[in-house]
Amino acid sequence: MGMVMVLYPEKLLQLIGSLQKLPGVGRKTAERFAFQIIGWTPESRAQLSQHIGQIAQNLHHCATCGALSSDKTVCTYCDSDGRDKTKLCVVSSPKDIFTIEEAQAYNGLYHVLPCLLSPLDGAMADDLPIHPLIDRIQQKNIHEVILALDTTIEGDATALYIQRELAKHKITASKLALGIPLGSSLDFIDGGTLHRAFTGRHTLS
Amino acid sequence: MGMVMVLYPEKLLQLIGSLQKLPGVGRKTAERFAFQIIGWTPESRAQLSQHIGQIAQNLHHCATCGALSSDKTVCTYCDSDGRDKTKLCVVSSPKDIFTIEEAQAYNGLYHVLPCLLSPLDGAMADDLPIHPLIDRIQQKNIHEVILALDTTIEGDATALYIQRELAKHKITASKLALGIPLGSSLDFIDGGTLHRAFTGRHTLS
Repeated sequence: MGMVMVLYPEKLLQLIGSLQKLPGVGRKTAERFAFQIIGWTPESRAQLSQHIGQIAQNLHHCATCGALSSDKTVCTYCDSDGRDKTKLCVVSSPKDIFTIEEAQAYNGLYHVLPCLLSPLDGAMADDLPIHPLIDRIQQKNIHEVILALDTTIEGDATALYIQRELAKHKITASKLALGIPLGSSLDFIDGGTLHRAFTGRHTLS
Repeated sequence: MGMVMVLYPEKLLQLIGSLQKLPGVGRKTAERFAFQIIGWTPESRAQLSQHIGQIAQNLHHCATCGALSSDKTVCTYCDSDGRDKTKLCVVSSPKDIFTIEEAQAYNGLYHVLPCLLSPLDGAMADDLPIHPLIDRIQQKNIHEVILALDTTIEGDATALYIQRELAKHKITASKLALGIPLGSSLDFIDGGTLHRAFTGRHTLS
């Protein structure tokens, strides 16, 4: 590994180092990216460089819900007249909002958590302020709270924590259904999912 | 797919589009990269942006051999006194030079081909000018030409083509040995490689 540091030109090493910060990108992939970028047209390079450099100036987090927005003060969801403002969907990342919107599965408001509980990564209950959520629910006449979190250990723990905190204020929340995803073969479904799918089975009428 | 175009803010779409130009990066991965980049510190973003934008100003292709170099006129390999200048190793990418140097497997000069022959991708013999290579071999007192190309259909076809062109000028070339890579179990070696390993077997003395 030490040898490589010597061999690559300094500027190339810097680029590789920066690219390695991308999620799932190790040294080999970063090297492939770097050599590809070197081979690009100057225009393509300038574009990517600009888009990265300017992305934060052009995107803002909604002060109310945390969604990404082009507008500085309010996001399209909080601002829209066409949405059901009695429903609040709790997600753990602004990206999840786009996923839900893309599926057209929901038409209410959102609330983005700063993180999921993850003791191993140092994200404890203190890092997950629950009061902005409770205040919003109580002050804004929210009738339904839907927890749309990852079905991982972190997501489940967070959902449980939020559910208990909300219960202290007599607020009930629902969670998304667990089951077999569309278009999948039973063969490839893990036992845990299958178990939840049986538990959640419903009578055909 | 059409829905996504509407949902993401314009600037985010541009960043995702630029990131998709990286090798092996599809829409989903580009989205992950983009959201990660949005969450970076402004310094990290500025760094990556700068490194990409300036990489070409700081790296040059050696006019003689095509290797990447920090120096404008000559590369460290062509310029070095410590290298065997009677040997010429033909590679298909500047990146391959770093790989060979890292292994400390070779101490001669290099020659980077502009591409490999690949009729399907539109890379024909006309795109692979052979005369710079032949001129260099004849004028620079090269005694040994080593073809270090990928062992793919494209690499093999290119090696065969170059070998024939060199033969017209009575220049012989060698190819890297094919065989079982170090540290591998026979179980995982494909039949073609095993076949070549048997053909290339050598008597222990």
